[in-house]
Amino acid sequence: MRDFLPAEKARRERVLAVIRERYRAHGFDEIETPVMEEYARLHAGIGGDNEKLAFNVLARGLDAEAIRAAADDPAALTDLGLRYDLTVPLARFYATHRGQLPTVFRSIQIAPVWRAERPQKGRYRQFVQCDIDIIGDASARAEAELAVATLDTLDALGLEGGSIRINDRRVLDWMLESFGFGESERPSVLITIDKLDKLGPDGVVAELRERNATAAAADAFAAFLRRPMTMEYNPYGERQIRKALPEGAPDEIVAHLVGIGDAVAAARGGADIPLVFDPFLVRGMGYYTGTIFELAHPSVSYSLGGGGRYDGMIGRFLGQDVPAVGFSIGFERIVDLLEGGADAAASAVVLVHDRDVPTGELLAVKAALVAEGSRVRLEQRTKNLKALLERAEADGYTAFATVSAGATRTDLEVKPLG
Amino acid sequence: MRDFLPAEKARRERVLAVIRERYRAHGFDEIETPVMEEYARLHAGIGGDNEKLAFNVLARGLDAEAIRAAADDPAALTDLGLRYDLTVPLARFYATHRGQLPTVFRSIQIAPVWRAERPQKGRYRQFVQCDIDIIGDASARAEAELAVATLDTLDALGLEGGSIRINDRRVLDWMLESFGFGESERPSVLITIDKLDKLGPDGVVAELRERNATAAAADAFAAFLRRPMTMEYNPYGERQIRKALPEGAPDEIVAHLVGIGDAVAAARGGADIPLVFDPFLVRGMGYYTGTIFELAHPSVSYSLGGGGRYDGMIGRFLGQDVPAVGFSIGFERIVDLLEGGADAAASAVVLVHDRDVPTGELLAVKAALVAEGSRVRLEQRTKNLKALLERAEADGYTAFATVSAGATRTDLEVKPLG
Repeated sequence: MRDFLPAEKARRERVLAVIRERYRAHGFDEIETPVMEEYARLHAGIGGDNEKLAFNVLARGLDAEAIRAAADDPAALTDLGLRYDLTVPLARFYATHRGQLPTVFRSIQIAPVWRAERPQKGRYRQFVQCDIDIIGDASARAEAELAVATLDTLDALGLEGGSIRINDRRVLDWMLESFGFGESERPSVLITIDKLDKLGPDGVVAELRERNATAAAADAFAAFLRRPMTMEYNPYGERQIRKALPEGAPDEIVAHLVGIGDAVAAARGGADIPLVFDPFLVRGMGYYTGTIFELAHPSVSYSLGGGGRYDGMIGRFLGQDVPAVGFSIGFERIVDLLEGGADAAASAVVLVHDRDVPTGELLAVKAALVAEGSRVRLEQRTKNLKALLERAEADGYTAFATVSAGATRTDLEVKPLG
Repeated sequence: MRDFLPAEKARRERVLAVIRERYRAHGFDEIETPVMEEYARLHAGIGGDNEKLAFNVLARGLDAEAIRAAADDPAALTDLGLRYDLTVPLARFYATHRGQLPTVFRSIQIAPVWRAERPQKGRYRQFVQCDIDIIGDASARAEAELAVATLDTLDALGLEGGSIRINDRRVLDWMLESFGFGESERPSVLITIDKLDKLGPDGVVAELRERNATAAAADAFAAFLRRPMTMEYNPYGERQIRKALPEGAPDEIVAHLVGIGDAVAAARGGADIPLVFDPFLVRGMGYYTGTIFELAHPSVSYSLGGGGRYDGMIGRFLGQDVPAVGFSIGFERIVDLLEGGADAAASAVVLVHDRDVPTGELLAVKAALVAEGSRVRLEQRTKNLKALLERAEADGYTAFATVSAGATRTDLEVKPLG
């Protein structure tokens, strides 16, 4: 967990303001839920591996006897936990407030989550997630709205040229079935396939064999991976999707994927469709039921976000299935990418004053500049004026003026810094 | 703990944006600390009664034996807790990062805190605090900068006419001593005096006698409360402060209070000084060492924030005393006061479309409006168009247009709602 000093905090808030403004422009509405959810809800099997990483809150009012009794059932020590994602709270929120929300509800959530990860570079125990979700729309339009809003936001952050890798869990399932993998072994096969980027085709096939996957199926899969093809991922469309899959892919799923591309192309208005079909994109979470995606940008090899369709989850809270699809932009990674951005403030002035300037005079001058729209910091003059001004410049200040006793706003000469 | 639906969340974000922008204009810098702090730090006696209300986080990796052993020492079950205020984390932050901060550090913290309060109207277990603090300036200028920034922020929120009740803990201590209260009984006497608004002068004196406060001191205090005086709190200044106190108030403390008023007056530029000296203002926290204040507004009887000087606290973390003073604006109360504010978005358009409009066409029209600077929500036409439009208006939308198959942006007739 980290402290954020002023320059870093200002950059984070600037990025969040852009994300919030763009998502809102695309018709999404921001909501907020408490950081703590009931323990039972956080450990209902929806959160996958993240459930194990949850921080749990000690129940209040436990006496010595209750604590001793909990030795055999540690869950009795806790009744609340810190959320590890924003999807479980959204499902609970939607089930609670459905009557007050539009039929198709487009939500924004911008908020911290907590996971007790082992400390390592780029992993934090508290980090901000920025999620948009569309609940109540089963059509490809939902995926397209998410993709367009996400790419527009990336553009607005100065990260033009982003694209979205896309696949469908149903495609993966059909493909594994067509190779001959049994239903029960498919989840484990997916975990191996998810390592394709890291292990390469031969490594993946070797691991499948090590894990005793159905041998004929592993052979069929190996043959498919080795088939001669130019890996022409563009242009995105039906021909290219069918080419990337074994023959006979289900029409309905292919049509859904093509529909997303057509809609994104129409909205983006360019010849290039910023989607890349990747038949081996897996995404870890168990709750995905259809489309899955990951956000890519040419400047980095890792993904800048991802999401997918999870039509089954809301039903677990509501007792009635409702289609849902979400996209989470990787806020922490994006902030790191944008390091060094400038402050939006038009004018930020350091007022360097002599020690003997009466406080009233000084605050009157400051108030006059604030009223003109400037951001103003007071600094008492030190021997090393240069160092003082350099530090102010590093903090985002753009100009300075010196104030002596008796001075008013009209006496002030505001000079640019640097 | 509460969920926030879109309209409420939007109002909260608008208020936060104004507060953040105004505080920054006055030269304060925002920082952020993790929501969890070490258990020992949260329970070091600084937090007063709030320490008992802390949510503590279950330590990870406790085995059955460790849990059984904790029956006699429940603190062993926890190593982290959720912060109950922003002052303890600020002191820890400053002690950690002092070398990277300006000599006089003006901080903004806008963040949630948690307290396990009994549920009651207007009390929440998770609520947002907005604090500004100045660390490293012992002069009255620090109090004046806080007061000016706070009143300007209140003005910017449309709550003009605010004022600040002010006192000094040293004044209280001197006054109690002059009445004859012993040093050890003064904290308990302060708790009773803090009820003056509720109990009235007679009730306070009666409680002091019930609690066996030094009898002669209680008599002297009673006589002081009953002295004939017009409660002329204005104009704020030395004459009025001395009139409100027993004779012989220490010059240095009075000068500090007068200095704050002069500086605020100079900065605000009006004849009225928006300060009210209240010799019986107490403020609950034990860590205050000097000036204390509360924010008042004519529209409400309760305070909209408060703060004070706590010169001793940073030293507990740093091993070296550093002057500090802070002001916390009552965000939750202000949001409730401002209920119903309008959205800042210039144009927010609902696109009502027929079911048969191709998704690509629809998203192209939406994208065109978004590119023009509008916020755009899609709604499929329902039989009751009026209800649909009324709900959109309640959600902050200002205009609508209907889209049929084949339409483009140029065919669109955007009409105002309502």
